[in-house]
Amino acid sequence: MPKIDAQRLLADLRHLRSIGAQGIGVVRPALSAADMEARRWLRGRYQAAGLAATIDGVGNLLGRSPNPGPGLLIGSHSDTQPTGGWLDGALGVIYGLEVVRALAEDPETQHLCVDAVSWQDEESRFFGCLGSRSFCGLMPAEVEEGLRDKDGVALGEAIAEAGLRDTPRLSVERERYLGFLEAHIEQGPHLEDDGQKIGVVSTIVGLRGTVFTFTGQQNHAGTTMMEGRKDAATALYALAHAINQEFPKAAGPRSVWTMGRAVVAPGAPSIVPGHAELELQFRDASDEVLDAMQAVADRLVAEVNAQGGASVEARPSRVQIAPAHMDPGFQEHLAAAAERHAPGQSVAMPSGAFHDAGIVCGVMPCGMLFIPSIGGISHDFAEDSHDDDIVLGCQVLADAAASILQAA
Amino acid sequence: MPKIDAQRLLADLRHLRSIGAQGIGVVRPALSAADMEARRWLRGRYQAAGLAATIDGVGNLLGRSPNPGPGLLIGSHSDTQPTGGWLDGALGVIYGLEVVRALAEDPETQHLCVDAVSWQDEESRFFGCLGSRSFCGLMPAEVEEGLRDKDGVALGEAIAEAGLRDTPRLSVERERYLGFLEAHIEQGPHLEDDGQKIGVVSTIVGLRGTVFTFTGQQNHAGTTMMEGRKDAATALYALAHAINQEFPKAAGPRSVWTMGRAVVAPGAPSIVPGHAELELQFRDASDEVLDAMQAVADRLVAEVNAQGGASVEARPSRVQIAPAHMDPGFQEHLAAAAERHAPGQSVAMPSGAFHDAGIVCGVMPCGMLFIPSIGGISHDFAEDSHDDDIVLGCQVLADAAASILQAA
Repeated sequence: MPKIDAQRLLADLRHLRSIGAQGIGVVRPALSAADMEARRWLRGRYQAAGLAATIDGVGNLLGRSPNPGPGLLIGSHSDTQPTGGWLDGALGVIYGLEVVRALAEDPETQHLCVDAVSWQDEESRFFGCLGSRSFCGLMPAEVEEGLRDKDGVALGEAIAEAGLRDTPRLSVERERYLGFLEAHIEQGPHLEDDGQKIGVVSTIVGLRGTVFTFTGQQNHAGTTMMEGRKDAATALYALAHAINQEFPKAAGPRSVWTMGRAVVAPGAPSIVPGHAELELQFRDASDEVLDAMQAVADRLVAEVNAQGGASVEARPSRVQIAPAHMDPGFQEHLAAAAERHAPGQSVAMPSGAFHDAGIVCGVMPCGMLFIPSIGGISHDFAEDSHDDDIVLGCQVLADAAASILQAA
Repeated sequence: MPKIDAQRLLADLRHLRSIGAQGIGVVRPALSAADMEARRWLRGRYQAAGLAATIDGVGNLLGRSPNPGPGLLIGSHSDTQPTGGWLDGALGVIYGLEVVRALAEDPETQHLCVDAVSWQDEESRFFGCLGSRSFCGLMPAEVEEGLRDKDGVALGEAIAEAGLRDTPRLSVERERYLGFLEAHIEQGPHLEDDGQKIGVVSTIVGLRGTVFTFTGQQNHAGTTMMEGRKDAATALYALAHAINQEFPKAAGPRSVWTMGRAVVAPGAPSIVPGHAELELQFRDASDEVLDAMQAVADRLVAEVNAQGGASVEARPSRVQIAPAHMDPGFQEHLAAAAERHAPGQSVAMPSGAFHDAGIVCGVMPCGMLFIPSIGGISHDFAEDSHDDDIVLGCQVLADAAASILQAA
């Protein structure tokens, strides 16, 4: 059984944290100077671990094992949120590196093929999971061409700025891999609340999005009587509140929904709004539950339109993601490895957040492992996990990787 | 009985419309080049009518009669909304000018004292009714100092740009006036809907404003379970919808309320909002009704806070206006004049919109007269009234002014 080096693992994680550090947080958005510095440092660590390491034309870092496949691809992403925590993505990247080293140091596993990877732009500076989509052949060129970040910087400019303009893209060699393993902090409270140490992900939840556009009649807020109004904001408040009241009847126990974007125009207190927009996003691991929630939203839209005030139209938002099921065999290996190192302290669970594995599972089997997040905090400088949980998770992943490869 | 000159009235209105014209609309915001051009043209028309005309340091245009007081002050405002109609304010200004001319041409009224006025910035580029507030001594210097328009231009810069930096302000000579008369388009549908020609304003409705600030916990929209959320937007939608459901029970038949400003932060579809703001504005002619509506809002805030999600705090918004009652004697004179020229076609009514008379009534008696707005449209390029209604309104105002002065 391969044995990871806890001090080496933690030292590498802390070094990666120092690149783009701001206080206890990390600011390393995709293709930024800090992101590229981190990828060049990681490339050196991959090389030192015996991998042939390459940064491709979108910034993906791939370290190829000298051993023949079929093997495993293991990693996550080293780009961060605009104001991110130190473990989101970074944990899974350093785990991949450490699993490569641990297997190479054990005579019983040193012949096994493990490639390590750090995907680019999981965090959606330009487009969520841009790097893994590109690697998997799931990023249409026409979509990529129009991409800009929130400051208006074009993806092509950022790639040129990062020195990657003439660098080719890598594409998946499908026959090389049994599958992809990704470890991640949970980003939620369940493991900690339930006293568990390892989550074995069953499904990455699906996500549906709907944009509601309300059309009313802009008017003077003093002289326009209530009965003559078509107030776009009134219709928005009614629909949003009704969704919050009615969704629990269709939702599953882990369903979530959010209406985090609402715009009322022109936005003046003394003008009856003529226009408004509301964006609804809802997630669940089951397509049937998502369908049921969608049906509720459709019914409520019809009810608002029947009331005769402002009208509302619904259209799907840009991102729609089907639930992604993790490979059952990989789940068994991960659960068995967890049981060996932390008996009775692992649990099967869905992932409420999206991950690169949700993309990569379109081209090969995937497995995911979670470790506890302190307080469930994520996408925040305060994001953290306990050192012993970090070490345990990596040991479980190394063990599972070895057992998957040895069973193949 | 003085007789107005319909052609002269309409010609002056059309000339004023041409200054800052954009299509059928007018763009003449306070202290803009077009606004100052209009005021200089009006100054010439005042002078031609025998008035001693002055533009003061904030842009108010006052034309003083050579006759001794006490007399009447008559006018409105010649600044417009950013994209305004041709009659809002302009109608009342040209009415004031025409009443001066008509009384001066009639041997029986030529001794009477009528001053004409065009107030500055009724439409709130910097501060609503800035000019009439300044004239009446109701504009605190410390408030005026900080004023900027929505593009960030300081009031002082705009005054300097208009060439008024070293021009003194005018202040009301209280003993000179019996009171102030203002005519205006209705900006609502009541006169047209009811087949009436003249509205005699009883009260300018009061306005209360409340800003609600919602404080929740910003979080990941995928991994934060519903029961653990403190979603600021959810609380906003609930309170706004409850206000729309409960206000009709406390409101009067002409009460209006609007929640035209709503902001959800950070405003991303995949982030549980941690902050939100909602602004409620409500109007009625009765302080008792306004108090009852306020009590409903207070109760609903307490209910949202009792639900244990995001919390909400309420504070009064910047502008709070008490109902302004028009002088009963002036109302009688206006109604009697209307009855002479349009028997059975005038009606007493509140004003749902605010006007300079709502400021000036703080220092002297005021009266207001409305003429019908086609389709009730206002604050829009399409704002219009029929020529015969325009002519009739001015004749009624001239007659009422003469009878007020003759009765004094």
